[in-house]
Amino acid sequence: MNKVILLNKRPVGKPVLSNFKFAEAEMPVCQDGEVMLKTLYVSVDPYLRGRMNDTKSYVPPFQLDKPIQSGIVAEVMDSENSLFKKGDFVSGALDWKQYQTSAGKGLNKVDPSGLSLSAYLGILGMTGMTAYLGLTEIGIPKAGETLVVSGAAGSVGSVVGQIGKILGCRVVGVTGSEQKANLLLSKFKFDEAINYKTSIDLREAVKKACPNGVDIYFDNVGGEISDAVMGNLNKFARIAVCGAISLYNETKTPVGPRIQPIIVTKSATMRGFIISDFSAKFPIAFTHLLAWLKNGQLTYSETIVSGFDQIPQAFLDLFEGKNEGKMLVKI
Amino acid sequence: MNKVILLNKRPVGKPVLSNFKFAEAEMPVCQDGEVMLKTLYVSVDPYLRGRMNDTKSYVPPFQLDKPIQSGIVAEVMDSENSLFKKGDFVSGALDWKQYQTSAGKGLNKVDPSGLSLSAYLGILGMTGMTAYLGLTEIGIPKAGETLVVSGAAGSVGSVVGQIGKILGCRVVGVTGSEQKANLLLSKFKFDEAINYKTSIDLREAVKKACPNGVDIYFDNVGGEISDAVMGNLNKFARIAVCGAISLYNETKTPVGPRIQPIIVTKSATMRGFIISDFSAKFPIAFTHLLAWLKNGQLTYSETIVSGFDQIPQAFLDLFEGKNEGKMLVKI
Repeated sequence: MNKVILLNKRPVGKPVLSNFKFAEAEMPVCQDGEVMLKTLYVSVDPYLRGRMNDTKSYVPPFQLDKPIQSGIVAEVMDSENSLFKKGDFVSGALDWKQYQTSAGKGLNKVDPSGLSLSAYLGILGMTGMTAYLGLTEIGIPKAGETLVVSGAAGSVGSVVGQIGKILGCRVVGVTGSEQKANLLLSKFKFDEAINYKTSIDLREAVKKACPNGVDIYFDNVGGEISDAVMGNLNKFARIAVCGAISLYNETKTPVGPRIQPIIVTKSATMRGFIISDFSAKFPIAFTHLLAWLKNGQLTYSETIVSGFDQIPQAFLDLFEGKNEGKMLVKI
Repeated sequence: MNKVILLNKRPVGKPVLSNFKFAEAEMPVCQDGEVMLKTLYVSVDPYLRGRMNDTKSYVPPFQLDKPIQSGIVAEVMDSENSLFKKGDFVSGALDWKQYQTSAGKGLNKVDPSGLSLSAYLGILGMTGMTAYLGLTEIGIPKAGETLVVSGAAGSVGSVVGQIGKILGCRVVGVTGSEQKANLLLSKFKFDEAINYKTSIDLREAVKKACPNGVDIYFDNVGGEISDAVMGNLNKFARIAVCGAISLYNETKTPVGPRIQPIIVTKSATMRGFIISDFSAKFPIAFTHLLAWLKNGQLTYSETIVSGFDQIPQAFLDLFEGKNEGKMLVKI
């Protein structure tokens, strides 16, 4: 028997379990040119929320009664494709199914030796690419500059901060609990950590943590946290807008202070991106990340939930900040 | 007798005449190394509003009971400086005085032949530099792309649009009267003009005028006009934030739709600037502007008011949109 998770209803505001539907499917059989895959790890990510809306965006929306897709690591169970053989491990954008076939397009073989297979969905996958390329291509860090990261204990944020340190920046993380703040300082070696939930005046807290102002802001969250950081920008600051998890579940257009006056006054650059914008640079990013992992300069956290049935709940938990680092489901 | 205009009181919200004060001063006398200047043309510009506030910004605020400064073209009446001689014409950031001395720092000689001296405060001065460098360095226009300009009939906007046309863009201007809209089409050869004051749904109006979406937005005004344009951005759009005249007189922090979700979804880049950021490129900008002026590809409008006493009122009139193109006072 094979299980699959479909989009049942489009969420309005915060997603709930009933937006998803479990179904049973036939066990797939390899056709010529295909591989048959067994899902091992499923990545759940905030950006999937956007694909649940029926709005035009950089990737097409999920369709009702069709499988949700995300980054998955799988084992090749059977192959009629000369590029893959039984026993290979692959990563790619795949359906939330226990078993599925694929023509191989977009699949990358991953090396199971030395590192956990889950790393290919995180630090060596989209997470690592997003952190490395968003920071280096948009943030353009220089040694001695101050980097602020929001969503700092999340999968991308924790890697951004570490890369900032490797490149010589003073790194300040904004996060949502004392436990995460401590983790930023102890495990990820940030210079300062701010718990936005206990800060009475967040703008002042950022100012105190950044006595020389903010040169680079890597923004994962948007909203009031970003307002506080934007109030402390230096001249020629760069803002990499990676995500806006605080706004994804809003049902009305979110409103806040207009930022154009700050952008002009500070000659600042704000640039949004999705990781495919930088796909030409994945190999160089991979090379750096792997080297830093191996020499111990880079570490990562994972929150791994077990069981195919837990995928929707793991996704919902992202919006409660229940993950520490990359959120994955092990099947 | 020599007249001078001082900052009398800092404005709260919209500036009024009583924020300024006229005073009499001694006729200045050239000391060694100095030139004595007679003011001929005074530029009044929206950015001066920012300097009337007592807030830290990219240039220091004006001081109470001290002269206001702006771009001025003057004639050298007397010189004890070997770089200038009596009868030379110069431009520079000078005090609102009929006569003043200067050590020569920051003064540029201007050529009175062929072009009006006033051009050196406009199309060949800060206005032209701002238009050319903001558009080319941040907008990075490619032939066939769509450029939207707000404040399009203003001094900078009308030049931006014409340069966009020269570089092969489809150019759409947003302005505040039928008369100005007609001028954009007839004199400045924009492809489309939108009168925001008579548009019922500005976002739809922009959409209609930009059937292929907006690749470049040159923003002079901020506020709701920008919201409407931002709703029509294409993937990889560039937004040059030059000014935000609609917000300069706000006494509370202006609030509007948060733009980070658009910035991410469109992988857009928003960058603010002041013209001194690009000072290294003034010579190349000047070369292009002069060539286009001479071959007739570029034209400009000026609104010239006469009389030293009219300087404050001319400045106030900017915020009512009473100028067409560059606003100047001829002394």
